[in-house]
Amino acid sequence: MDSGVGGLTVAKEIIYQLPNEHIIYLGDTARCPYGPRPEEEVRRFTWEMAEFLYKQDIKMLVIACNTATAAALEEIRTAFDIPVIGVISPGARSAIKYTKNNHIGILGTAGTIKSEAYEHVLHSLKESIKTYPKACPKFVPLVESGEYNSSMAKKIVAETLSEMRQYPIDTLILGCTHYPLLQPLIEQYVGPKVKVISSGDETAREVSAILSYRGELHSRHEKKQNVFYTTGSPVIFGQVAREWMNDESIVVESVKLP
Amino acid sequence: MDSGVGGLTVAKEIIYQLPNEHIIYLGDTARCPYGPRPEEEVRRFTWEMAEFLYKQDIKMLVIACNTATAAALEEIRTAFDIPVIGVISPGARSAIKYTKNNHIGILGTAGTIKSEAYEHVLHSLKESIKTYPKACPKFVPLVESGEYNSSMAKKIVAETLSEMRQYPIDTLILGCTHYPLLQPLIEQYVGPKVKVISSGDETAREVSAILSYRGELHSRHEKKQNVFYTTGSPVIFGQVAREWMNDESIVVESVKLP
Repeated sequence: MDSGVGGLTVAKEIIYQLPNEHIIYLGDTARCPYGPRPEEEVRRFTWEMAEFLYKQDIKMLVIACNTATAAALEEIRTAFDIPVIGVISPGARSAIKYTKNNHIGILGTAGTIKSEAYEHVLHSLKESIKTYPKACPKFVPLVESGEYNSSMAKKIVAETLSEMRQYPIDTLILGCTHYPLLQPLIEQYVGPKVKVISSGDETAREVSAILSYRGELHSRHEKKQNVFYTTGSPVIFGQVAREWMNDESIVVESVKLP
Repeated sequence: MDSGVGGLTVAKEIIYQLPNEHIIYLGDTARCPYGPRPEEEVRRFTWEMAEFLYKQDIKMLVIACNTATAAALEEIRTAFDIPVIGVISPGARSAIKYTKNNHIGILGTAGTIKSEAYEHVLHSLKESIKTYPKACPKFVPLVESGEYNSSMAKKIVAETLSEMRQYPIDTLILGCTHYPLLQPLIEQYVGPKVKVISSGDETAREVSAILSYRGELHSRHEKKQNVFYTTGSPVIFGQVAREWMNDESIVVESVKLP
C-alpha cells in the first residue's frame, strides 16, 4: 500500500523477484500526497489502508510509503499477526552496504525528513554514519501527475538537489517510493560517483527473505491476476501503472476508505 | 561457520553492515574442503560445527558454506530454536534481482553443484530461469592455501570458466563462500557484461533483515572482540583472516571437533 502510485515501484520489484506471489495493491490517491500532512493524520490514513488490505486475507503487508512507514509501521506491526514490512529499514540497510565513506544523503517528503526515521535506523545500525537529509516536496506531485519525464521535472530535480551536490556523499537514498520514477534524472544530476539507492528494490528483497524465513513463499505459479485499487480516479493511476509496470493488462478498481 | 576461511567473506560483510553485533566464527579447516566429500559426511561435520556454536549462546547461526547449506540447512533449522540462515537462498534471490535475460551461471563445489540446491531455489522462485552450473574443484584449495592472487590462480580460473564464457548468461553466482577471494580474477575473465554475485554480501543483508524483523539487532556498540576458531592450524588461517578482513588485531584460536 502507498499514498498513491509511488508504491508501484515496490510492487514492480516484488512481481519481478517473486512472480509466483499474488499482489493486492492499494494507492490512496484521493488523499495523496501524505508528505506535508500532520503525523496524526498520516497515521489514521495508514491504519485505514492497512485494515482494508488485512481483510483481503493477505499473508504479509508492505507499507510501500516512507511517510506512512515513519508514522505507523511500529504500531501496525505490533497489532497485526502477519509480518508487516516498511521501506525505511531496507533502504537504510542497503545504503550502509554501499557507502564507503559513511556520508549518506537522504531525499524524502517533509514528513519523512522531519521524522528523522532514516537517521534513527542508520545510526542504530552504524553510529559512524553522517547523514545529509533533504525534503523534496515538489517530487511527489510531479510523479502523481505522470510528469516524471518532462523538462519541468528536470528543472525541479536540479533546483532541489543543488545543495546535495556540494556534500561529500557517496550514497543517496531515495526515501520515498515515488522517487524511483525520477531516478534517471536524479542520477544524471548527482553524477556517477554517487550510488542512488531505491528503497523499493531493497524492500522486495526483504519481502522475499522474510517469506522464505517463515516458509511462506509460493513455489508454483497460479494464473491469478494481481489486483490494483485506488481511492482516486482510476484513469491517471491506470496510465502510470501500465506504463511503469510495463503491463497493458493492468486493471484498476476504485475503492472508498475507510 | 564454514569449512574453512571462505565464510570470512560473509563474516566481513556482517561486521561491515552490522558493526554492533558480536561474531563467533568457526572454520573447519582441518577437514576442508567439504566440496568433494559424500553428503552424509558433510552433514555430520556441519552438525558438529552447529552444536559447537550453539553452545556459545548465539542468537543466530549463519551456515556460511554452500556445501554445508545444501547438505544440512533444513534439518538444523528445524532442530534449533534460533534462526538459521544459509547462503544459497540469498545468493539466488540476488541473482533473480539482477538478471535481465534469465540466464544465470552457477559456480560451486562438486557437492553444491551435484545437490542442485541453487537450481531448486531459483526455479521455485521463478520458473523461467535457465541455469548453467559448473563445479570448480580447484578453487577452494587455491584460496585455503592463500594463493588467490597468484598467476596460477589466474590460469586455473581461465581453464575452469572457458565454457562459461560461451553461455548467454548475464549473471554469475559465486556459489561458494571461498570464491569472492577470486572475484577480481573471475570478473576479469567473464567480462563487464556479466554481473558477478557474491552470496556473502547478500547473506549479510538477510542476517540484518531477519534480526531486525525479530527485533534482535543490537543498537549499541560494545567493545567486545570478535572470536575466530579453526579446527586446523591457526597460522595460515590467521594470515588469510587478517589480510582479507583488513584487521591486524584478529587472533585465531584452535579448537577440536566434535
